[in-house]
Amino acid sequence: MITLTSDFGSPYPAAMKGVIRRHTDAELIDVAHDLPRGDPRAAAFWLRFVLPEFPPAVHCAVIDPGVGTDRDALVVRAGSHVLVAPDNGLAMPPARALADEGEIEPFVVDADEPASETFHGRDVFAPVAARIRDGLGDDPATATAEGVAETLAAMDDLSPAGDPVDLVLPDPTVERDDAGEPVAVEGEVLAVDRFGNVVTNVPGELIRGRDWVRINDELTPVAETFGAVDKGDRLVTVGSHGYVECDVNDGRGDGAFDLRPGDSVRIVADNVSV
Amino acid sequence: MITLTSDFGSPYPAAMKGVIRRHTDAELIDVAHDLPRGDPRAAAFWLRFVLPEFPPAVHCAVIDPGVGTDRDALVVRAGSHVLVAPDNGLAMPPARALADEGEIEPFVVDADEPASETFHGRDVFAPVAARIRDGLGDDPATATAEGVAETLAAMDDLSPAGDPVDLVLPDPTVERDDAGEPVAVEGEVLAVDRFGNVVTNVPGELIRGRDWVRINDELTPVAETFGAVDKGDRLVTVGSHGYVECDVNDGRGDGAFDLRPGDSVRIVADNVSV
Amino acid sequence: MITLTSDFGSPYPAAMKGVIRRHTDAELIDVAHDLPRGDPRAAAFWLRFVLPEFPPAVHCAVIDPGVGTDRDALVVRAGSHVLVAPDNGLAMPPARALADEGEIEPFVVDADEPASETFHGRDVFAPVAARIRDGLGDDPATATAEGVAETLAAMDDLSPAGDPVDLVLPDPTVERDDAGEPVAVEGEVLAVDRFGNVVTNVPGELIRGRDWVRINDELTPVAETFGAVDKGDRLVTVGSHGYVECDVNDGRGDGAFDLRPGDSVRIVADNVSV
Repeated sequence: MITLTSDFGSPYPAAMKGVIRRHTDAELIDVAHDLPRGDPRAAAFWLRFVLPEFPPAVHCAVIDPGVGTDRDALVVRAGSHVLVAPDNGLAMPPARALADEGEIEPFVVDADEPASETFHGRDVFAPVAARIRDGLGDDPATATAEGVAETLAAMDDLSPAGDPVDLVLPDPTVERDDAGEPVAVEGEVLAVDRFGNVVTNVPGELIRGRDWVRINDELTPVAETFGAVDKGDRLVTVGSHGYVECDVNDGRGDGAFDLRPGDSVRIVADNVSV
Repeated sequence: MITLTSDFGSPYPAAMKGVIRRHTDAELIDVAHDLPRGDPRAAAFWLRFVLPEFPPAVHCAVIDPGVGTDRDALVVRAGSHVLVAPDNGLAMPPARALADEGEIEPFVVDADEPASETFHGRDVFAPVAARIRDGLGDDPATATAEGVAETLAAMDDLSPAGDPVDLVLPDPTVERDDAGEPVAVEGEVLAVDRFGNVVTNVPGELIRGRDWVRINDELTPVAETFGAVDKGDRLVTVGSHGYVECDVNDGRGDGAFDLRPGDSVRIVADNVSV
Repeated sequence: MITLTSDFGSPYPAAMKGVIRRHTDAELIDVAHDLPRGDPRAAAFWLRFVLPEFPPAVHCAVIDPGVGTDRDALVVRAGSHVLVAPDNGLAMPPARALADEGEIEPFVVDADEPASETFHGRDVFAPVAARIRDGLGDDPATATAEGVAETLAAMDDLSPAGDPVDLVLPDPTVERDDAGEPVAVEGEVLAVDRFGNVVTNVPGELIRGRDWVRINDELTPVAETFGAVDKGDRLVTVGSHGYVECDVNDGRGDGAFDLRPGDSVRIVADNVSV
């Protein structure tokens, strides 16, 4: 199985699939091709969320603002999974989630001169992913971490990566009262989805059970569903990724809260009765 | 085969596919993941239109505004097809279309506590669909209505559903003249597609052959193609689902006609010569 | 393998897949279903770009503004590939790219009366593509140009097409100086993608190495990446299809340059030093 992720829209991913079909008939599953353009951190967040649901697979993820520069092409073994991605850090957060207790082994791809300056998804990453998948074969024994490690070690055009770019999704800072209860969190916006929902790095359990919190000083209701507030009204909820989201029912949270990826967000407990 | 339908956008359906791949390597076909958010009726309409094209399959459809409440998870046998969906009625109109003369058998899923409050597509519906598909096996004999019924009956976590929510897509009221010819129809808007085309429940044959009709009193040309009217102009046409649509060439019908899902629409014959 | 391309959005392509699954379990790969509506030329451009990446396959492409008129349904053999499309010319540019030195053989489909006036993707093109794929079988020998030709010749409902509509993507006119260096190009806009990027028919090598050009008299920087200019600023770049694009960083090139498909565009070399 090869999963495919990009910010390419359409029809570019089909060109990658055509190239892969010249090497292998392995199953292809699209993760997403509408991720935020040129944003490796948003991609890292979404892949860390989605990829651990899969059984061992080769994951080809091309969000590549540095295409055409001398950034490396990376192959990362994460336990019995393999990630193929540009060396901009996006592969590392999902690799840590996939490896669990397993080892993470990064490799640099010694690629031929690609046919294009701008479409390395087709010219570099898809062929590498296809050849790795082909190398793994269909023997279940190669789907173990050891089997995958041996397959990668045997590939001529992979060499151990000395110092791959890492991208660490930030942790929030939690302020607690004397009883150890959280009273405030300094977090950060990790991603804005295509509906304008603002995904933070603040774990959902920090707001569960509360009715109201202050988001950057603005009093906002906590709700489990969008429908709990009127259309056009703001709310704070916990997304299925487990993190606090700043949303608007039938509207865009990024505009209403004035929050973009990378912005800091302060969430303060508030015991209002209304 | 498992078909997948949702209002999740991306990349959430990929998480469902990962979960399914842990249970079965059955083929996965996306029906749509951009259906109107939280609108079981629109989903019922589109699934009733699309699913009957498929050979026997397991259809997993998650449009689930009640996620996190105590609504049941439902499995519905419709002839040799199986629908897996929240118990909000969306499964019943396509089930009736798929069962044809066959029997409809609804079951309630006795699900474990799901891992999330909000992503039962991943935590409840995808695993159930995968286990059903896995239980059916690849023996063509199980693809008969009887084979499917036996497989479902043998599943420990399914019990007959006493009174599943039904959702009946409304029928229009037709007024006829003394000769039995239709002169007016009271219909309803079933869905608005992403281009703003307004799909009604009025069968296309009621306007075929006419040049003009009144839509809620507004004189509108009947056309077979958008290009028959100028850009920005309104028209009435018959969509490939066979129902009357209120559209605008290169524009949005929902805005121009001021029609939303659930609104009533009166279509009156008019013999204008222009 | 059957690839699928349309301007149908969702969920219509799923109906085509259901129909195909009644005939064959051949793999289905989506090229795109969000191509510009009713624009065979844009489809021809994108298919000429994407399809040559694939190994031999049946390609079903339905951009069909003439649906419901008496335009023919066409099957075109291009070497060992087969295109199935309405007879509006869209199949010919990709056929020439796929055939390379091979032969191009067009056939007309003798179709039964389709079930709908407007959804020939489901009622005509998908069944024909499925039956051709089924006829080819899985013997690698039939994947040769000769094998494909024999399979098509044996199909009862195909007859040689006398004079299929051709659609020739225009070539630009290059003006050169005495040394043979290009100084100006008269080109044309082939397509606008969904980000508003304006794709011309001017080969990228005509602007490579330059810092500035005039686009319809407007001085514009040439850049390899969008990030080379400020957000909201215009640039000229070479897309992965190899052609000159007129873009705006984080904006829409079609608006900024006032260019739409079919418009002519004059690109003049300019040796500005800034």
